[in-house]
Order: sequence, then structure tokens, then C-alpha cells
Amino acid sequence: MEHNRIKIGITQGDINGVGYEVILKTFDNPAMLELCTPIIYGSPKVMTYHRKALGLETSFSIINSASEAMHGRINIVSCNDDEVKVELGKASHEAGKAAFDALEKAMLDYKEGLYDALVTAPIHKEMIQSEAFTFPGHTEYIEQSIGEGAKALMILASEQLRVALVTTHLPIAKVASALTTELISEKIQLFDASLKADYAINSPRIAVLALNPHAGDGGVIGDEESTVITPAIKAMREQGILCYGPFPADGFFGNGTYNRFDGVLAMYHDQGLIPFKTISMGEGVNFTAGLPLVRTSPDHGTALDIAGKGEASESSFRQAVYMAIDIYRHRQTDAEAHRNPLRKLYFEKRDDSDRLKLD
Amino acid sequence: MEHNRIKIGITQGDINGVGYEVILKTFDNPAMLELCTPIIYGSPKVMTYHRKALGLETSFSIINSASEAMHGRINIVSCNDDEVKVELGKASHEAGKAAFDALEKAMLDYKEGLYDALVTAPIHKEMIQSEAFTFPGHTEYIEQSIGEGAKALMILASEQLRVALVTTHLPIAKVASALTTELISEKIQLFDASLKADYAINSPRIAVLALNPHAGDGGVIGDEESTVITPAIKAMREQGILCYGPFPADGFFGNGTYNRFDGVLAMYHDQGLIPFKTISMGEGVNFTAGLPLVRTSPDHGTALDIAGKGEASESSFRQAVYMAIDIYRHRQTDAEAHRNPLRKLYFEKRDDSDRLKLD
Repeated sequence: MEHNRIKIGITQGDINGVGYEVILKTFDNPAMLELCTPIIYGSPKVMTYHRKALGLETSFSIINSASEAMHGRINIVSCNDDEVKVELGKASHEAGKAAFDALEKAMLDYKEGLYDALVTAPIHKEMIQSEAFTFPGHTEYIEQSIGEGAKALMILASEQLRVALVTTHLPIAKVASALTTELISEKIQLFDASLKADYAINSPRIAVLALNPHAGDGGVIGDEESTVITPAIKAMREQGILCYGPFPADGFFGNGTYNRFDGVLAMYHDQGLIPFKTISMGEGVNFTAGLPLVRTSPDHGTALDIAGKGEASESSFRQAVYMAIDIYRHRQTDAEAHRNPLRKLYFEKRDDSDRLKLD
Repeated sequence: MEHNRIKIGITQGDINGVGYEVILKTFDNPAMLELCTPIIYGSPKVMTYHRKALGLETSFSIINSASEAMHGRINIVSCNDDEVKVELGKASHEAGKAAFDALEKAMLDYKEGLYDALVTAPIHKEMIQSEAFTFPGHTEYIEQSIGEGAKALMILASEQLRVALVTTHLPIAKVASALTTELISEKIQLFDASLKADYAINSPRIAVLALNPHAGDGGVIGDEESTVITPAIKAMREQGILCYGPFPADGFFGNGTYNRFDGVLAMYHDQGLIPFKTISMGEGVNFTAGLPLVRTSPDHGTALDIAGKGEASESSFRQAVYMAIDIYRHRQTDAEAHRNPLRKLYFEKRDDSDRLKLD
């Protein structure tokens, strides 16, 4: 039994922020070690510093390699040199470099199969920039590092809502021109596949949001709805995916329409994250779908302003660990279930769009 | 006393939608006629049609001119010819024309001083387009018609939240280039003035949202925060306006920061309306600030899909009537209070940013 426990890799994130605080608070509860074996990519020295600042007594084990991780312990692999300096609350390139080194080591170890799923603590997206890291966020870096050509899909998930993004960390000025029928179709496909395999939903219903106010009001306020989004929805419907829209985003969330769908595809970051965070109230998790690696993260940032003060809530980070475990297990079950399938004769009837398939 | 009652002009909006339903349901309650005297700009024939479809028995009085409006009655001024045809749930140019004629008549009567404040039922923004109406919405049309050069500010208000928009009915592709320091400064000033005079808040605190995800993350995801938004905030702070930001929009709503402000200035439509509608749950009101006319409207659209079915909730429309009354009264009180002011020596201390003013 013990050896069936899932190994969760955890990157420390920005060492001047609340990363270690949410990691330590989460695993300070012994019940968490029953669920999984954490392997932290970071610095024992920095972890000790934060532990002291927070007045915690959580014990941990320093290991030389993730392959030595022990069940029932908080394991930490040293990724930074011992001179690394913590400056609580400060945006510094040194902290950015420390975050990057941990992330890079975690990517290498993933390729070696040393852990099952990854949870990343938040990075400072400006301070981490270097010649080696020229990405706007984790999602894009991980896609490039270990995606092997697969495309990532950013999904925000909580008990109430799952939102995926067509474009992620893009300036508003570039959103409209980045949208193409191909890109939206690809994201609908990825979302559908993820809802099935990662969230174990048999026939997921996906709502697609409009780009413009009032869904363009018939072309009066922009025409991407008719030229780009609707063709993607139609094409994916023809492939049997249950997708609908485009819905004007404000009313969609305001009147609770989102409750009738398993997933919501937003066109850009704030369109998805504003309602997600408003509705999920600190329990949201960011999941990078579409890649062989299962990677989740909390839905908050480095929170430099409250670093080391003990004020950060670990609930989103804990949910991120839970979700990484759930998704990893669902994927195993899904792979098992599809290994030797019966010939499918028809879809379960859920609405008028389903039709008998006899091919 | 009776003659002190506020006269509320009401435009019928799209005659194939839920406009008459929310008007009739609101004024079916006799208590509403104690608060104000409604003057509906529309068609007695169409109102009768909707009344019958809804199974209501609300009585009303047809008047030839708003100057004949009677207290204690629902007054209606005929603005359409008697041939106008209702086709419930259908988007039609005939219904758009009927909505426009009512709106135009209401503008003329406002100039004659025949009512005090205006509440508009929703129009179909595509069907109302004609040579005479080439605007993306009510706000822009009213600004042009009776603004006398003054600029309008679109405010969404409910018990929980007041949101104002820098840009309103603009395609996402055009939002970033439309933002200038001057425009944002102007909107901050309008918002501040409206919160004081229209909402009777002495020292309003205004939060200004960022444009880009993560407020641009220091320039990694767009630079409008540093080049355009922050300079506007600084300039307005120097004028004594209590404005703060720019805040990344998702976290701002997700962690409840909005509760600490009297108003939130969003850069574009969905950025403000998605969280507003999510939080206000059908009780929200749209208010056009900055103009001599007090104009409010419900925060929903024509809802053609449920027209004539009796399913529409009138709560947002009723709130719109309440808010029009409140704002009209606050403006009168404010004008009265400022008629002969004492010399102001200092601001009420609310936070560290306030300072003694002895000029």
C-alpha cells in the first residue's frame, strides 16, 4: 500500500514570497503525508528560514535525489547554492534565479520519472526572466520544456467552475489578433479531452464565451464572434464535441448559466480569471492540461506584501495538491478503461444535439 | 406633497422583448406610485398586448403629452403609430424603430423639462440601428442628444459594488489603443464627482483596475499600466482625488479588495460587467453619470428568448427606478448644500494619503 502513494514534486517558487508558507502550512498536517509523498525542489536553508519566520516546527528530510524520497516525510532536494539570500517581500533577481533553478531541476527529474505529478508555488514573473527563461509564466515554460510538441491548455478549476483559456499571458492589445478558428478549435478539443480523462466526465458540455461586449451585438461591436468563434464551435460540434456559444460573458456569469456546463472556455486571461476567482473564493486551482505531466498550482501569486507574516492562506495550495492527485488517478483509470474498448454504438442521450452513431 | 413626487420618464425599449413585462410588473405594485409618477414613452396598443400575454390587469392612462401626467396613475404617451406589430421574441427592425421613436420623444420632452429622471427599458442594439441611430448603445446616444458637450460615464451600481467604465461598447481589438492618460483622468474625475453628488459619498475612494493580466507583470505582459494608467492615477491624486491602483483585476475581485472602495474604475466593458453581474446577482443598475439628465436602466438585455412568458424578473428594473429617484434627490441636496459653502479647512482623515489642506 505504502508504495502506491503518489509522489508529488513541488517547486519552491519565489523565495521572497508566500511559497514556503503555503507549502509548510499544507504539509504541517500529518494527514497530507497519508495521501502523497511530497518532494520539494528548493533550498533547505530557505525552508528553515521561512519555518522560523512563521514559528512552525515542521520537520523535513534533505535528500540528494528525488529517487531517495521517503514515504511519510517531507522530502527536499537542494537546488540552490547555500549562499542564496532571503529578503522577505522584496522583488529580486536572486529570488527569481532560485525559483528558476528549482523549476529546471524538477523538469529534469520529471523526464527521469522520479515523481508522478507536479505542484508549483508562485514565481515572480518579472524577476524570473533571464536568458534561460523568457516565458510569461509556468504554463508556457513547461509546455516548451517537457511538452514534446503537445500544446498546453490552462484550466482553472474549483468545486463550482472549470474555466479554460484560449490565450493566457497576453497583453489585451494582442488578444483579438491572436484568436483564430484553428486555435479555438484546438483548445475546445484539448478541453474536451481533459474533462474526460482528467476530470472523469463522460460527455462534457463546454460553453464558449464571446470575445466582445454583448457577443458583438450582431457585428455592431466587433465581428470575431461570427468570423472566428462560431466557425470553431460548428466544426467541433460536427466532431461530436458538445460545445455551445458564443455567450456574452457578463450575462453568462451573472445569471448563473455557467452552472449548466462542465467547462467554460474564455478567450483571454481576465475574462476567465475574474469570474473564476470571484466565484471560487480562494479555493481555485490552476491546472496545465494537454501535457503528459500533471501540473497544478494555487491561483494566487507571490503575495510579496504579506510574505513571512503568517497571513497567507494555504487553502488554494492544498486544493492544488488534492487536484494533482485526483487528476493523476483519473488518468490512470481512464487509460485502463480505454485499453480494450467495446465498439461504441450510440452516445448517451443528453440533449437534442446527440445522435445515433452507427459507424 | 403630491406635487413633490418625482416624474420618471420610461422608454419602452424593444417591443418584442421583456421591456413591458418588467415595466408592468414593477408598477403593478401600487406602492411604486407613492414614490414617483411614471410617464411611459411607448405604445398603448403594445402595452395592452403585453399585459394580456402576461395575464396582468394593470390599468394605465393614455395622455397626449407628458405635461398632462397624473399622479397616482401609470401614464403613457403614444410614440408609435397604431399599425406597429408585436412579434414576441423576434429581432425586427420594426421593433427597433418603435424603440427609437420612443427614445427620441423622451429626449425632446426632457429638453422641455417634462420629467425629472429617465429609466430606459432595454433596446436591441442591432435592430435599432438606422440613419438616425448609429450608436452602440443608449449611453452614447443620450450623451450626443442632450449632453451639451458633457461626457457620459457608464456606472453599474448595486448594494455591493459600483463599477464605472473607461471604454464602453468597444470591440476588444480597439480597447488598448483607445486608452489614454487624458481619457482615464477624465473618467476618474467624472466618477469622483458622481460618487459625491449622485451617491452622497463625502470622500469617495476609487480603485483603478489594470488593463493587462497581472497588471502587466512589470511590462512582461503589456505596458499600458506604466505608460498610461499610472500617470493618470498620479495626476488625479495630485488634484486631491482618492484614487489607487492599478490593481490586477482578477485578484481584486477574487480576494474581496473591492469591498474597501466606494467605486471601481474598469478599463473595458467585460472587465467591469463580468464581476459586477456575478456579484450583484440580478439587482444591478446601469447609471449614465456625467450628464444633466439622470438616466438609469436595468442591467439586462431584451431577453428575446423569454419574451412574453412571464419569466422575466423585474427586480433590476425596479432597482433602476429606485436609483433614479435616489440620485435625483441626492443631486438636489448636493446643489443645495453647495450653494453657499464654508471655507474648507481639512479633509476627514480616512487613511495616510489624506493630508491637511490649508490653502
